[in-house]
Amino acid sequence: MSEIKQVIVVRSDLGMGKGKIAAQVAHAALDAADTARRKHPTWYDSWREQGQAKVVVKTDGGEEALEELQKQARSLGLPVSLIQDRGLTQLEPGTTTCLGIGPGPSGEIDKVTGKLKLL
Amino acid sequence: MSEIKQVIVVRSDLGMGKGKIAAQVAHAALDAADTARRKHPTWYDSWREQGQAKVVVKTDGGEEALEELQKQARSLGLPVSLIQDRGLTQLEPGTTTCLGIGPGPSGEIDKVTGKLKLL
Repeated sequence: MSEIKQVIVVRSDLGMGKGKIAAQVAHAALDAADTARRKHPTWYDSWREQGQAKVVVKTDGGEEALEELQKQARSLGLPVSLIQDRGLTQLEPGTTTCLGIGPGPSGEIDKVTGKLKLL
Repeated sequence: MSEIKQVIVVRSDLGMGKGKIAAQVAHAALDAADTARRKHPTWYDSWREQGQAKVVVKTDGGEEALEELQKQARSLGLPVSLIQDRGLTQLEPGTTTCLGIGPGPSGEIDKVTGKLKLL
């Protein structure tokens, strides 16, 4: 099995604090992993065996950028999870904060997120 | 069912960047949630239905503090996951970075982490 990883893309334009970012990223990671576990169990199992690699990157392109990345990832058959904040603190309710992609084959995910910088 | 939440405790003494913190917290969240899904499925299901609340807090007490919190959480029967970094970037291999507790009943988790400050 090739390298399996998960990438989480965070909006850098919202000014979220590091605790807020961590909670939103965890939410995306868990949701996307749950989808993978159900729809792509071999990816999920390999990812867990390999140490569940996660990479956190950023975009300054706002909600539109996350939606475009989601569309690209879906078209490649990758599990995705777009996270909206419940808005109890810091942000307006329904604000899109981050996008989880994978676990899935590293090369496929790189087609979507390969140009984004690390958070 | 009472309120179910997950708390992730992060070491604040390591000087981790926000992307590093987010990845480590996601790791802890996923591992502890996976344990809950297998051992406490009613907690896990309720947590997911309630919106999978996550709270990220910090300790400056180093590895010893995380281990003590882990012991307390275990003694209450809560799912826990203590995360060690693989040390490929930023940290020495095997450095303990954070502790995931729950999902579990909010009141039980507060007995362990109620005095810790938000990250």
